[in-house]
Amino acid sequence: MNEHATNGDAGRYAYEGLDRVLHEKARLGILTALAARPDGLLFGELKQLCSLTDGNLNRHLEVLHQSRLIEVRKGFDHKRPQTTCRLTVLGRRRFREYLVQLERVIRDGLSEPAAQSERPSGLAPA
Amino acid sequence: MNEHATNGDAGRYAYEGLDRVLHEKARLGILTALAARPDGLLFGELKQLCSLTDGNLNRHLEVLHQSRLIEVRKGFDHKRPQTTCRLTVLGRRRFREYLVQLERVIRDGLSEPAAQSERPSGLAPA
Repeated sequence: MNEHATNGDAGRYAYEGLDRVLHEKARLGILTALAARPDGLLFGELKQLCSLTDGNLNRHLEVLHQSRLIEVRKGFDHKRPQTTCRLTVLGRRRFREYLVQLERVIRDGLSEPAAQSERPSGLAPA
Repeated sequence: MNEHATNGDAGRYAYEGLDRVLHEKARLGILTALAARPDGLLFGELKQLCSLTDGNLNRHLEVLHQSRLIEVRKGFDHKRPQTTCRLTVLGRRRFREYLVQLERVIRDGLSEPAAQSERPSGLAPA
């Protein structure tokens, strides 16, 4: 093995905790919107807040629902059908855990550059 | 329009700044690893640090390179071919901007739940 500097650091930037179910940009927006609203949000509100089409929002809600991160309730308001979405207890917990991972990424990304003293001599800065 | 609470808040959680080129989990790991190393990293180092296969790493490096976020140099170390990757000036700037957006997501996600006083009466907490 000619490439060092990674000894003991394998997977340091793999960020396994960034579950793609939550990390996907549109779903991240949906979850963040719901996190601030324990009573949930109407489909139409979510659609506006997240700038999504009906089709896209439906698709992402389906993924979140299948992962048991949100609950979807069909109801009526003055006989008009309405869909309300809210985070489940699991969803809230998983979202918090995800945010902790995200904070780690930011810390890593803003950290001072490493000294790179282990850089192989042939690859010193040009 | 029967669904309020979003007036003036349209797109509040769209997070347009979360460019998918940078936001994708594996590429986010690659960029974070490179951000800390101005001299760049060898292909083999990146592969280990990010727990990626040769094929996956190549694919993601290609996307980042096409977006001019990284530069890829082919060189030799003791006659053995070596590939070094590093962030471009543009890449470093874009990554910083991305991190600022990510901080906003975390702030939003950790903010206290809204009062939801505008919730339509038919949707009061069950």
